[in-house]
Amino acid sequence: MSIRELARHLNISIGTVSRALNGRADVNAETRERVLKAAAELGYAPNQSGRSLRQGTTNAVGFMIETNRETSLHGDTFFMSVYDGVQSVFAQHHLDLIILPCPFDDDPCDYVRRVVSRRFVDGLFISATQRHDERIDYLIEREIPFVALGRSLSGGPHSWIDLDFEGVAAESVRRLVARGHRRIGLINTGNDINLGYVFADGYRRAMAEAGIPYRPEFVIRADQTSEEGGYGATDRLLALAERPTAMLLVNEIMAIGAYRRLHDAGLMPGRDMAVIGFRRSPQARFLSPTLTCFEVSLFDMGRRLAEAMLGLMPAYRDLYPGPVVQEIWPMHLVGGESDPPPLSLVMGKAG
Amino acid sequence: MSIRELARHLNISIGTVSRALNGRADVNAETRERVLKAAAELGYAPNQSGRSLRQGTTNAVGFMIETNRETSLHGDTFFMSVYDGVQSVFAQHHLDLIILPCPFDDDPCDYVRRVVSRRFVDGLFISATQRHDERIDYLIEREIPFVALGRSLSGGPHSWIDLDFEGVAAESVRRLVARGHRRIGLINTGNDINLGYVFADGYRRAMAEAGIPYRPEFVIRADQTSEEGGYGATDRLLALAERPTAMLLVNEIMAIGAYRRLHDAGLMPGRDMAVIGFRRSPQARFLSPTLTCFEVSLFDMGRRLAEAMLGLMPAYRDLYPGPVVQEIWPMHLVGGESDPPPLSLVMGKAG
Repeated sequence: MSIRELARHLNISIGTVSRALNGRADVNAETRERVLKAAAELGYAPNQSGRSLRQGTTNAVGFMIETNRETSLHGDTFFMSVYDGVQSVFAQHHLDLIILPCPFDDDPCDYVRRVVSRRFVDGLFISATQRHDERIDYLIEREIPFVALGRSLSGGPHSWIDLDFEGVAAESVRRLVARGHRRIGLINTGNDINLGYVFADGYRRAMAEAGIPYRPEFVIRADQTSEEGGYGATDRLLALAERPTAMLLVNEIMAIGAYRRLHDAGLMPGRDMAVIGFRRSPQARFLSPTLTCFEVSLFDMGRRLAEAMLGLMPAYRDLYPGPVVQEIWPMHLVGGESDPPPLSLVMGKAG
Repeated sequence: MSIRELARHLNISIGTVSRALNGRADVNAETRERVLKAAAELGYAPNQSGRSLRQGTTNAVGFMIETNRETSLHGDTFFMSVYDGVQSVFAQHHLDLIILPCPFDDDPCDYVRRVVSRRFVDGLFISATQRHDERIDYLIEREIPFVALGRSLSGGPHSWIDLDFEGVAAESVRRLVARGHRRIGLINTGNDINLGYVFADGYRRAMAEAGIPYRPEFVIRADQTSEEGGYGATDRLLALAERPTAMLLVNEIMAIGAYRRLHDAGLMPGRDMAVIGFRRSPQARFLSPTLTCFEVSLFDMGRRLAEAMLGLMPAYRDLYPGPVVQEIWPMHLVGGESDPPPLSLVMGKAG
């Protein structure tokens, strides 16, 4: 009997069953009782290879990344800063962090299965979470300690930390509206990564709160979240019959391409089109005009990811007690020169 | 008796002794004879833990990176493309690539020792090779299959692949000189990474060939090979009493900062200061004016790194026969708008 069959028998989620079996406080007493009783009656035994992995035999924790999707999404130094944060905590426990790059033509869930069966690591960070992410169900079923960088509809009370995509979208919209913009474009991801949905939700909600009708043509799904993607998406935005006066980008790497497309059209970022980027990355800091974007300490977020992981590992749980970590990591607006009021308004005021 | 003691006894390098013991063709017959005779007489036995690692027990190969030094040097997407290339070869042999990020406050050689003693991997790629690199001597001594991305004065006939730093520097100087530049600055790394020496050598040699005296004040060692580093180094270049009319950068990330510093001084990159970057990266492609730089297929280089590694691994050696790989990887100039003739010359011609 697997945990999956046990969950099906009880008609509750695998995640809840797993938490109940592990005695987590976030499962109510009645459910825990039911689960433990059924497990005993039906002769459920924890999966052995999962178990041995959970006991910790490698003293290494893996961090799975997807070479294509994510590096184009977050760009250069995003992950490196996160690793540094994770390692600064792991170093105290003589734990090593190893990075597991899923080949671009490999299925992410197959890759996770291989990592687990090869017993590379005692625990696993996953990232680039999809809206529905099979990896999460699998890791819960196998009882592998894991922390997701990114939310998902899959799973349940598993550990995750995510950037504040909806907060950034909402704050950006409010800032632009306060400055007089009403036609605000959104350049979003084009794939099924969860953050794209969260970002679009934040935008839609803030537009609605401002009383501005939602216009689907203002939401562009970029082919890639890269410089090229930003260039192409801006091109599509400029081609609209009624052009937005402002645009939000789901990542700052695309701002480089957006600026370039605006220049090529004889438009000045900021003056002719307000632009708000996402994260204040090293690249973004050198754009001219300076990009309005959001600061985040990735090092600190890495430390928190490490703590969330240690709280799940049998050997360290006592040192890192507390409930399952589910946190939206804050980001702070850093105003730049790229989002003044719309030109029409400035000219109107001047005239 | 260790291989180190054997080498000391024979008064030849550890690398040569190792190659001789492994029957590599690049050791002359007389030396091989001498080594084998001494090994037999002195009772040398190959290091056992090294051996077991060499036999291949993990089916994983590691790629060590240094989170601070290198990511600021190359940016993340550099390595991602390399990993993709490596994995495309490894996939055929069901070998996994795992990335081993050396924490920024850890000693790289201690880190390699830990990786080896923990037996994470059957082989190891190292990068960011220093001019003298203890890791190389250690890996040779322990007989671990390894391939260096980057040259070093350490070691001997070990496997390495490196970008063509001297070729890029020399071709850049020749191009600038042909366009009329004589005062050419060099923005180099400030640390002891080997590529900085190679890059400076290429510059010096090409300047000498052009009959232009070497001016040490034109060579700036940047604090960091980052946007900030490029900004600061350009600042120092602009402060010179007699200003260069052109500058070469050891990496293209610094071009972003260099452009910004020029803009802040009211100077136009290209028109007022010729700039040649290093690699044609996704970021560099979106600089305006477009940056003259050098194209390289990192995916193909990754494939070649994988082949070099498989040629060293007992289980795959027969499939990848041939001498030790020591290759300078070619890079091809892509002309941009950033390096026209100097303004004085253009004005002189016009007048």
